[in-house]
Amino acid sequence: MPLTPDQQAEIDAARGESQQTLRATVPGMEAHLYKAHEVLDHGFVRVIDYMGDDSAITQAARVSYGKGTKAVQNDEGLIRYLMRHWHSTPFEMCEIKLHVKLPVFVARQWIRHRTANVNEYSARYSILDREFYIPQAEHLAAQSTVNNQGRGAVLQGEEAARVLDMLRGDSMRAYDHYEAMLSQDGQDGLARELARMNLPANVYTQWYWKVDLHNLFHFLRLRADSHAQYEIRVYADAICEVVKDWVPAAYAAFEDYRMGGAQFSARGMDALRKMLAGETVTQESSGMSKGEWREFEASLKG
Amino acid sequence: MPLTPDQQAEIDAARGESQQTLRATVPGMEAHLYKAHEVLDHGFVRVIDYMGDDSAITQAARVSYGKGTKAVQNDEGLIRYLMRHWHSTPFEMCEIKLHVKLPVFVARQWIRHRTANVNEYSARYSILDREFYIPQAEHLAAQSTVNNQGRGAVLQGEEAARVLDMLRGDSMRAYDHYEAMLSQDGQDGLARELARMNLPANVYTQWYWKVDLHNLFHFLRLRADSHAQYEIRVYADAICEVVKDWVPAAYAAFEDYRMGGAQFSARGMDALRKMLAGETVTQESSGMSKGEWREFEASLKG
Amino acid sequence: MPLTPDQQAEIDAARGESQQTLRATVPGMEAHLYKAHEVLDHGFVRVIDYMGDDSAITQAARVSYGKGTKAVQNDEGLIRYLMRHWHSTPFEMCEIKLHVKLPVFVARQWIRHRTANVNEYSARYSILDREFYIPQAEHLAAQSTVNNQGRGAVLQGEEAARVLDMLRGDSMRAYDHYEAMLSQDGQDGLARELARMNLPANVYTQWYWKVDLHNLFHFLRLRADSHAQYEIRVYADAICEVVKDWVPAAYAAFEDYRMGGAQFSARGMDALRKMLAGETVTQESSGMSKGEWREFEASLKG
Amino acid sequence: MPLTPDQQAEIDAARGESQQTLRATVPGMEAHLYKAHEVLDHGFVRVIDYMGDDSAITQAARVSYGKGTKAVQNDEGLIRYLMRHWHSTPFEMCEIKLHVKLPVFVARQWIRHRTANVNEYSARYSILDREFYIPQAEHLAAQSTVNNQGRGAVLQGEEAARVLDMLRGDSMRAYDHYEAMLSQDGQDGLARELARMNLPANVYTQWYWKVDLHNLFHFLRLRADSHAQYEIRVYADAICEVVKDWVPAAYAAFEDYRMGGAQFSARGMDALRKMLAGETVTQESSGMSKGEWREFEASLKG
Repeated sequence: MPLTPDQQAEIDAARGESQQTLRATVPGMEAHLYKAHEVLDHGFVRVIDYMGDDSAITQAARVSYGKGTKAVQNDEGLIRYLMRHWHSTPFEMCEIKLHVKLPVFVARQWIRHRTANVNEYSARYSILDREFYIPQAEHLAAQSTVNNQGRGAVLQGEEAARVLDMLRGDSMRAYDHYEAMLSQDGQDGLARELARMNLPANVYTQWYWKVDLHNLFHFLRLRADSHAQYEIRVYADAICEVVKDWVPAAYAAFEDYRMGGAQFSARGMDALRKMLAGETVTQESSGMSKGEWREFEASLKG
Repeated sequence: MPLTPDQQAEIDAARGESQQTLRATVPGMEAHLYKAHEVLDHGFVRVIDYMGDDSAITQAARVSYGKGTKAVQNDEGLIRYLMRHWHSTPFEMCEIKLHVKLPVFVARQWIRHRTANVNEYSARYSILDREFYIPQAEHLAAQSTVNNQGRGAVLQGEEAARVLDMLRGDSMRAYDHYEAMLSQDGQDGLARELARMNLPANVYTQWYWKVDLHNLFHFLRLRADSHAQYEIRVYADAICEVVKDWVPAAYAAFEDYRMGGAQFSARGMDALRKMLAGETVTQESSGMSKGEWREFEASLKG
Repeated sequence: MPLTPDQQAEIDAARGESQQTLRATVPGMEAHLYKAHEVLDHGFVRVIDYMGDDSAITQAARVSYGKGTKAVQNDEGLIRYLMRHWHSTPFEMCEIKLHVKLPVFVARQWIRHRTANVNEYSARYSILDREFYIPQAEHLAAQSTVNNQGRGAVLQGEEAARVLDMLRGDSMRAYDHYEAMLSQDGQDGLARELARMNLPANVYTQWYWKVDLHNLFHFLRLRADSHAQYEIRVYADAICEVVKDWVPAAYAAFEDYRMGGAQFSARGMDALRKMLAGETVTQESSGMSKGEWREFEASLKG
Repeated sequence: MPLTPDQQAEIDAARGESQQTLRATVPGMEAHLYKAHEVLDHGFVRVIDYMGDDSAITQAARVSYGKGTKAVQNDEGLIRYLMRHWHSTPFEMCEIKLHVKLPVFVARQWIRHRTANVNEYSARYSILDREFYIPQAEHLAAQSTVNNQGRGAVLQGEEAARVLDMLRGDSMRAYDHYEAMLSQDGQDGLARELARMNLPANVYTQWYWKVDLHNLFHFLRLRADSHAQYEIRVYADAICEVVKDWVPAAYAAFEDYRMGGAQFSARGMDALRKMLAGETVTQESSGMSKGEWREFEASLKG
């Protein structure tokens, strides 16, 4: 359960206070505001604030005085053009702020995206809750035998049970000892900034994360991708659902040009042109390495 | 006159459409939205959008679920603490988007602040207007005789008149030739991306500029400072008036700790401690250079 | 002539002083160091310093203790893999510092690349030289009739002559007046920070520019592209020649995957798969806009 | 022991290969190159590469053709001026690349400094070593009773022993289970990207970290400060020793203006001026909060 009743009450209170504004406003995003979208066993994504909408992108691209053209079709065409030609600055004119609760090992991947603003819950200052990510049985995957950083088949039977026992047992023991070290009951109590080092990477943390739409798309392209680790991909997927409601035209262009598209090297284009001309091309004749050829063929199959 | 009737009509239309929102809203900023605050002879600053308020700063610092504490005093104290200790990330949680019209030589200084989002009016794509910055008589300053990058006394009489004549005359001739080169009347017409190079640095450009509050404060500290060039300082001053209405507590802390404060080197602190103990300190005995000593004395006078 | 004899002497002196170092060193880059590669009529690009080589990329990707594998082939394969999968951080481990002299309107495009370090010659502090970019006849292009931000045919005869006359005449007059305003001969002399605003955008400036290899590749992809304005493309081309000597394996991968490659949208991939299966696809049946279809066909032709 | 014999051999090999270069070279830094400076129980800091020296700072500030002035005193004066007036861009012209081995909880603080390049050892791809930070007895501090994010007295006797037992025991058990989950001996073996989540935050990781001198000074100001957590401060201290040998003039200015200096708010300056005029000022009459007054008094004592 990601939220306590007190936390839910604070969220409900915030959702009760509507204000008048002259700013660009998106009804679909107002419906998301403050609510917790649950992710994994204790995590969530909450929209705290947003700036701009689809029109804000074209308004900035045109440096216009008002809202830009009335014709929605023109705006969509321009947005597609900007996305196709990597004109990224107009997308930077939209901004979103999220409150995210997530395991530390996910946070460590996430923070690598540097062009964003972050305020994380401080374990030097405060005490972390007893909340750990324990995978569901169907996500307990074996090491991939073909990909050094991927997953293979799902673990079965005894091995799965033993793994879950270890994860659960070690998490609970680590937290018991964390509490025991912090306790000032008849002792001084270890500094919080030291005690926290006993907690494993599946403990939950939380942060406020603010990012512009261009950099968010970059994050989503990498993290909503099938090669991303499952535990961060579910966060990216949850954010995709939000962005779809926030800037539908920009999101559709993103899906078409980034998520659903493909890119080819000069060697790949050579091969492609020969194939379209009816020639047979093999890995050897293409000049590509085996790995590259495998990816090339996968792209063409879709 | 910075705005045409058409532009004013677009602005009025945008100000007429109020929406309901659950987001943090600041009445003082709503009053600024879209309006043009005039700067220099043809320039302006307009607020296009904003995200967050004073509470958003403390909410992020506490990573809280709702709006944070009800006690305004606690929020102010926390904001002052964050500012004093250079905890900059909570201030990054507020964002502002401005539409600015400004001379190119001012734009060239402004753009040096890299942590911001910019969309500038494109002179490759569009034709610039016949608008040039011509200083008012009281800002026509001589080169400073003590500061290599500063101004001295105001120019007088014939010299002032001659300078203004040159600036006005060259601007108009440059624009006449710009138009003549672009003209397709009985000729091909030079490419816009080439013709623009004839325009001097006092021609006006415009852009959308979006920045978070931490980086905006950094900009204001340097550009609203008495050492900044007058022509960018007036923009910074206009923005200060806006920020004061947006995040009053954060702005008050900024004024106290950044704009009104002073900093001393280790040598300066040595001197200060001796002076407080009743000793006489001179430039020679302080170990400071002449320039540093002059600044030290100026700080103490205020 | 981009360099005075004094400047050339300073460069020669710097090239005369060889030192011993344990750092990664690239003989091909040592040959470039400090020399001015001429660009346009008065501009240049000079390599001032560099950090890293091809091995530094793979060393960082492997977080290794020494230089990484001895097998050059393994390093090349890894570099190609990193480039293909947008693993950008290992490329950030190489850094280059350039001294560039360039017209102001080129500098204004260039500075939009924010992830770099810049120190520009200050026209508040110093006096600019009488050096202006005047295009050669074959680069005096008309506005494109199909592309709002492109060039068409080269101007001919009288029109070309008149354009050159205006550019030359206005540049010289602007500089004469710049000098006249600055002059302290019998008058106060206008502040340099004001006088400079009379100078047109084809005046030369110069700066030190430092950037990592990943961000440099991003710059080169956009600016060495055929859609970039000619006057910035020649700088990008000159830098490409340098990078080729500095990190040959990384540059080859960049050429293959970025410069010579192509990318397709989801709609484009649909069309491609149908074409490979022998179906006929038209703009209408593809779902692409006319502009997108034109670019799609151009990619396939190569 | 932070290095294995193999690793030491790789380092020795790299130190054996000296090359000729025309680049700026600093003998003091050459002596540091590749060597491991030990930090904590298993950590280290190694200089992998560097770009620039003190002269590179002034050369960029002057945008000069050669090495700048011959007079070392002039360079020092200019460096002090740049530091005093927050002219940060010339310091960005120097760059350093480090290889650092550090506990994960230290890495999590460190990575918050976003303007840097990082390649971390991947626990998705590789298996981490059995190395955990276990504090020495004298660093086993109690929670501070006055500062929510600080340390108080050192733990004694039984409490200290119990804390060390827990840290050591949990680390070893977590690693035993990590190995057991990964093992493919008679089972599939859990994916590395999942198994790693069992490891606590005191496990060691390592990365290549590259940063410019301006941003490094910012890091050092915050992390070599007495308020920083001890475990990151020792890394900052080790880096300070390196920087001192690399850019002695810049480091001296940094020490004087940043580390040894103090800053005062407008209220602080008011109080200071009154005190210099012989008036008595108290916390109440100063308008400062208790916390601010305490820091003000501490600054004056030094």
